[in-house]
Amino acid sequence: MLNLHSLSEQTLLPGTKGLALHAPLKQSDIGAQHWNLLRGDTSFPVAVLKSSALQHNLAWMKKFCEQSGIVLAPHGKTTMSPQLFDMQLRNGAWGMTLANVNQMSIAHRYGVKKILLANQLVSPADIRVALHLMLSDPAFTFFALVDSVAGAQRLSQAVRDSGLQRPLPLLIELGLPGGRTGCRSIADALALARAVSGDPYLQLAGIEGYEGLLPGKDIPIVRQFISELIELTRQADAEHLFGTEEIILSAGGSAYFDLVGRQFSKNAGLSRPILPILRSGCYVTHDHAHYQKAIQDMQLREPGMKDGLHPALEVWSMVQSLPEPGLAILTMGKRDASYDMDLPVPLSSHRPGDTTSPRALPPGCKIEKMNDQHAYLRLPPDSETSLKLAVGDLISCGISHPCTTFDKWPLLLIVNDAYDIESAVNTLF
Amino acid sequence: MLNLHSLSEQTLLPGTKGLALHAPLKQSDIGAQHWNLLRGDTSFPVAVLKSSALQHNLAWMKKFCEQSGIVLAPHGKTTMSPQLFDMQLRNGAWGMTLANVNQMSIAHRYGVKKILLANQLVSPADIRVALHLMLSDPAFTFFALVDSVAGAQRLSQAVRDSGLQRPLPLLIELGLPGGRTGCRSIADALALARAVSGDPYLQLAGIEGYEGLLPGKDIPIVRQFISELIELTRQADAEHLFGTEEIILSAGGSAYFDLVGRQFSKNAGLSRPILPILRSGCYVTHDHAHYQKAIQDMQLREPGMKDGLHPALEVWSMVQSLPEPGLAILTMGKRDASYDMDLPVPLSSHRPGDTTSPRALPPGCKIEKMNDQHAYLRLPPDSETSLKLAVGDLISCGISHPCTTFDKWPLLLIVNDAYDIESAVNTLF
Repeated sequence: MLNLHSLSEQTLLPGTKGLALHAPLKQSDIGAQHWNLLRGDTSFPVAVLKSSALQHNLAWMKKFCEQSGIVLAPHGKTTMSPQLFDMQLRNGAWGMTLANVNQMSIAHRYGVKKILLANQLVSPADIRVALHLMLSDPAFTFFALVDSVAGAQRLSQAVRDSGLQRPLPLLIELGLPGGRTGCRSIADALALARAVSGDPYLQLAGIEGYEGLLPGKDIPIVRQFISELIELTRQADAEHLFGTEEIILSAGGSAYFDLVGRQFSKNAGLSRPILPILRSGCYVTHDHAHYQKAIQDMQLREPGMKDGLHPALEVWSMVQSLPEPGLAILTMGKRDASYDMDLPVPLSSHRPGDTTSPRALPPGCKIEKMNDQHAYLRLPPDSETSLKLAVGDLISCGISHPCTTFDKWPLLLIVNDAYDIESAVNTLF
Repeated sequence: MLNLHSLSEQTLLPGTKGLALHAPLKQSDIGAQHWNLLRGDTSFPVAVLKSSALQHNLAWMKKFCEQSGIVLAPHGKTTMSPQLFDMQLRNGAWGMTLANVNQMSIAHRYGVKKILLANQLVSPADIRVALHLMLSDPAFTFFALVDSVAGAQRLSQAVRDSGLQRPLPLLIELGLPGGRTGCRSIADALALARAVSGDPYLQLAGIEGYEGLLPGKDIPIVRQFISELIELTRQADAEHLFGTEEIILSAGGSAYFDLVGRQFSKNAGLSRPILPILRSGCYVTHDHAHYQKAIQDMQLREPGMKDGLHPALEVWSMVQSLPEPGLAILTMGKRDASYDMDLPVPLSSHRPGDTTSPRALPPGCKIEKMNDQHAYLRLPPDSETSLKLAVGDLISCGISHPCTTFDKWPLLLIVNDAYDIESAVNTLF
């Protein structure tokens, strides 16, 4: 992928989070250091991605999409990592989904040519940057969302002012009362579709919705919402409003993509082919709490979905103090691991230098609080004798919600199953 | 300050958060663009620091310290911004406080020579990096905390192995039952002080505590804790355990520094001078919620403290959708503003191009939720007619807890009171 080389050739300076550097180091030389996390060769905290789990997840999702007859535009905002974007595109992704124009500029810098911008695009300065990408690179296309005539008019005016010689492709966003963005009814969405279709500077390219935040997260509501997306698509097609050869029909966060896949793939009988696009972002690393539960629920709905996603992302820290019985203070905090959906999930302990594998922590061990740079690991009363934690022991934690852990790490280390540090990936937030 | 020039000379690429760049731009050329936030020249969201408030806070805290007879080692983890470190040092700071060795490496790279490392230092790889800084730069010193004999022994062994020809100066950390790190009693702390004092590779330099997290945040408990720090200092001095010419006595987050200042400054009668060090970090930008309340409480305790700190940090975003009555969806989310103590505080609205000043939002406007990249601004029913918000309007928000907003922005823009963009500061997380 374009420019990935420039990342691996960059010089990492002392102070790089996760590493214990005395002197500058070229990023591509990380593997040659033969560091091992369990030996304590990194700084702590450190965020690692398990290579085997990453590869499993990439292959699993590729197979899921093939079997469901849908394509994937993984949400890049989750990781904002060009190397992970590259792995996703090599594993068949149609393009990337992104959340704003700056994220889109970064993806474009690393060679991403098709972007679903899963947001309303309203800021004039940001619109100019986005249109400049299309003007300067004829091979580049992005599809933005629109949910109001006011929004469509802003875009139309900007395309006219820019001199772009192709119309800007848009997806009508359908929402639900009480939800986030999106037209609140099929009638409103159709009216907007007509406005977009009749504008020479815009092109109606498809229909979009996001089922991940529906109130109550209720399965019948999710199914009903997906049905409405399909119904809107049918009605807009019946009025010949789409201006593209394929009609994009997009939904799908990381929690209900089975339902999206199942309903989108049954769709047919329109005037032109449907391109069903799923936008899951968290599947690539998965997690140990929120999305683990979502995939378990999915497997109950779809018993054929064997061997689900594997959690790839762990944050390791060190016991820095054992100030009173039942409490260990760890060198990890709100700057290092997600805390918006659940606090980190303590997994195992390890004494650096021990040749044994990390030991699973007993049930009841819990991160009960985090400050900016500290975590409070509460140990159940009966576990202390068996655990015999000491200052300097390592603790691994799984996380809940990958998006809010990735944005805390400019660099994440890739490890094999023995926690040898093999390489690193960058994030650009 | 060393190397600051390298930051201003760096090239910012399209995709840099907060800016709407078509092409690379040298950071020092930002002012010459004559951008104005209210005209919509930046990307949205954008984080800005109001120059007048920054300057006020720097001067205010300098005066407070001078009047209290204490020195300031501002906690650099709040901002991790070399340019702000520089402003703090130019305004009389004794040195910087930092939370871990990687933060310390970054501060050292920008010329900080005295660091209070307000944490236990336990990871061997991190200790080696820290000692390497002392070995390679004789002018550099850091003071680490210690709260256990096990921790002191790890440090002693590391100093011996490193070949460092000066002892490592340590502060004994005193804590409280139910608190975070720190010895749980004066007796334990004294025993540890004796062990450090008797170790040829270590040097007892002072006593430290952190009152900011005391259970219940109860003023008598804070006063009692500060008294215990002083009492521990007296007892250790009576046993001649300190190995430095001055005895460091350090406490003070951003909420109770008046109490610390008042009690520390009354201290006398020891065998050698006390160097009372305050470690507040949030004062430099202050905020619109958590620390605003803390300073209001402080002014009730100290009526002489007129004209307190001013909030300098704002995050501006744009209305991207008005999907139903009473709800505006903003282009700002958990990636852009703190949400750990309070959600952002909506302050004002502005229509780009209007020549008037931003209009204060009416009472009852509230950010009720944030997703990764969206905020939900709830408008009170009676305000909609007067507000007449439109897609594309700007909304300014104050934040609560500067630390967890700074770490979301590699670059923050410095603005004057008219929101002209004058320059930028970097953060290095």
